Amino acid sequence: MPSFKQSEHKLLLIPGPVECHDDVLLANAHPSMSHVSPAFAPSFAYCIKALRKVLYAPTAQPFIIAGSGTLGWDLVAANLIEAGQNALVLNSGYFGDSFAECLETYGAKVTQVKAPVGGRPSLEDVEAALKKDKYAVMTFTHVDTSTGVLSDAKALGELVKRVSPETLVILDGVCAVASEEIHQDDWNIDVVVGASQKGLSTPPGVSITTVSTKALKVLENRKTPVASYFANYKRWLPIMQSYENLTPAYFATPPVNLIYALEASLKQITEGSPSLEERFQIHREASKKFKKAAEELGFKQVATEPEAAANGMTAVYVPEGIAPPALVGALGSRGIVIAGGLHKDIKTKYVRFGHMGVSVHPSRNDVDVMIKGLQDAVAEIKHQSA
Amino acid sequence: MPSFKQSEHKLLLIPGPVECHDDVLLANAHPSMSHVSPAFAPSFAYCIKALRKVLYAPTAQPFIIAGSGTLGWDLVAANLIEAGQNALVLNSGYFGDSFAECLETYGAKVTQVKAPVGGRPSLEDVEAALKKDKYAVMTFTHVDTSTGVLSDAKALGELVKRVSPETLVILDGVCAVASEEIHQDDWNIDVVVGASQKGLSTPPGVSITTVSTKALKVLENRKTPVASYFANYKRWLPIMQSYENLTPAYFATPPVNLIYALEASLKQITEGSPSLEERFQIHREASKKFKKAAEELGFKQVATEPEAAANGMTAVYVPEGIAPPALVGALGSRGIVIAGGLHKDIKTKYVRFGHMGVSVHPSRNDVDVMIKGLQDAVAEIKHQSA
Repeated sequence: MPSFKQSEHKLLLIPGPVECHDDVLLANAHPSMSHVSPAFAPSFAYCIKALRKVLYAPTAQPFIIAGSGTLGWDLVAANLIEAGQNALVLNSGYFGDSFAECLETYGAKVTQVKAPVGGRPSLEDVEAALKKDKYAVMTFTHVDTSTGVLSDAKALGELVKRVSPETLVILDGVCAVASEEIHQDDWNIDVVVGASQKGLSTPPGVSITTVSTKALKVLENRKTPVASYFANYKRWLPIMQSYENLTPAYFATPPVNLIYALEASLKQITEGSPSLEERFQIHREASKKFKKAAEELGFKQVATEPEAAANGMTAVYVPEGIAPPALVGALGSRGIVIAGGLHKDIKTKYVRFGHMGVSVHPSRNDVDVMIKGLQDAVAEIKHQSA
Repeated sequence: MPSFKQSEHKLLLIPGPVECHDDVLLANAHPSMSHVSPAFAPSFAYCIKALRKVLYAPTAQPFIIAGSGTLGWDLVAANLIEAGQNALVLNSGYFGDSFAECLETYGAKVTQVKAPVGGRPSLEDVEAALKKDKYAVMTFTHVDTSTGVLSDAKALGELVKRVSPETLVILDGVCAVASEEIHQDDWNIDVVVGASQKGLSTPPGVSITTVSTKALKVLENRKTPVASYFANYKRWLPIMQSYENLTPAYFATPPVNLIYALEASLKQITEGSPSLEERFQIHREASKKFKKAAEELGFKQVATEPEAAANGMTAVYVPEGIAPPALVGALGSRGIVIAGGLHKDIKTKYVRFGHMGVSVHPSRNDVDVMIKGLQDAVAEIKHQSA
């Protein structure tokens, strides 16, 4: 294996894409391999198996497909609900709106339970909605990247099991997989929608979804055909099963290099130190530390309840006298990249920070660098305007 | 920029994925960058502009989206034809069958003009079909990867212009872009469907389509909504335009690293030596040389007409006494990876070779290595069975 050290660059601390380990980037530079090579199949199989570990989902079927995280919404909407059926969308920000639009594109009748910006729908409101009608699927954004709001995945899964056991529970975990603890099997989650470039610390370009046996049964018993060709789980299921059995099969060419990269990252996540359990704890601690430091500087979390804030990212309103573009610029000149606002209602009033994946690994000090950078940037801006 | 040399590996000479240049693989290992960074936008813009050059399509709109080549079929089927409209599919192998299935998934009424294995529909048959009904789109596979058959893109484009000018002409160029000459604008081609991992010598994971002004007009005037969320050109059009204007915009996260890799490859293709024109000539010469050598060893082309054979790949029936798996194995043990059969009717009787992209660059001798390997492998197998 050639040696490799990534070139100097600004530290990427947005809520995804995130920093990647040298080994992951080197794997992404793997010499060309046939997608049906017996030498490549073990890497594909490894990723499938490791994703089950990351999501505590021994019975789920992972699907690893070339695409953005967004493709996962189409996979759910085209495969697990039929035109005319009802979907309940819990909305805690930008991504709830978009998932709803995607479901409607495929003919679902969407009912939304919306929370005010920074909030999440209460369990009481969700229960009431579930009792009002019959829903094929209920979706929620585990971490809404636009607000940093964290949903209570466990409680939501249990609620559906109790109140509406036939409804499939869809967790949009694009900004949560591998940074937030998700016990897919135990929590009654039918689908986790993920992507490579967030907690999994792999370059973007891989759609990752893990699907329960119950959801696969729903797929099997559809009355109408799946309304997509590329995003058709029925076509991908035998492919995933074949690769897992080390027998490559073809439907569409997988993103071979990105799968090598994903394998390298999943090895660190599931076999390395810290352990998977410790990893989630480290994310919680890093989050707490950063949020505290930001609050001390006068930033105020967009998430309104402390227990409903993500552990892999932070969205905060800027203090008075600090314009978000100036702050982004001041951090940029210190070699740190953070993100501006995304949610349309508050876009110009807040900024977003990422602290997930390899960035919170004990061997690195990204969070300390980010805190120091933020302190210095704020001091600079205050000094300039004084 | 760190130095980089890919590790020793078997020479990948299948009809895609193909070998990548060191610079392309290094670009794929680019440190993490924000998808909306002003530092990344020029690379995205470069790819958009360079694709217009590669396809001689100054007026077309390229779309660069995370996905497999197959996603391009969904893009066509979901955006440029409406349910109930007619599609004419010219079938020269496996990929015609699949494109037809994809179109039907979205509600198109498909009529196929099928050629026998190794052939392509005659222009007379296509003309007759076009005169029989009104078609929203006509699709053809420029190079069918399963048979190595090359369609006459220029003649087909001109035929449609003369006989059925409202029909959109869709060229499936997944195995043709950058290895076969395609003059999209001059030849009246409305969409070229491509992917990164073939003639463009970039790792797999990017769907590339270039769409004519006329096709965008058809999209704009649809009576029914686009039947996909992720594969919706209306959502991607402003994004592509923004990136081209160096103003990043967000719909779904682009495959950032693969776009750096694509940029590195497109730089070599459009700015390097040989020139783009010479590049196509070099592909033709490499193909001729390899096909002649294979024929001298008793292999017979699947493509039945010499002028209807691809320049970037070769599909050949094995001579008597040589089993395809044995041949694949004998070449593999010589460090050369070739592909087995894919077309269901002849799967066990033939093999496929790739000679496209960086593999035919004058600085390399991949084709000579492949010819020598084939000669030795055949001699070995004959010796063993003698």
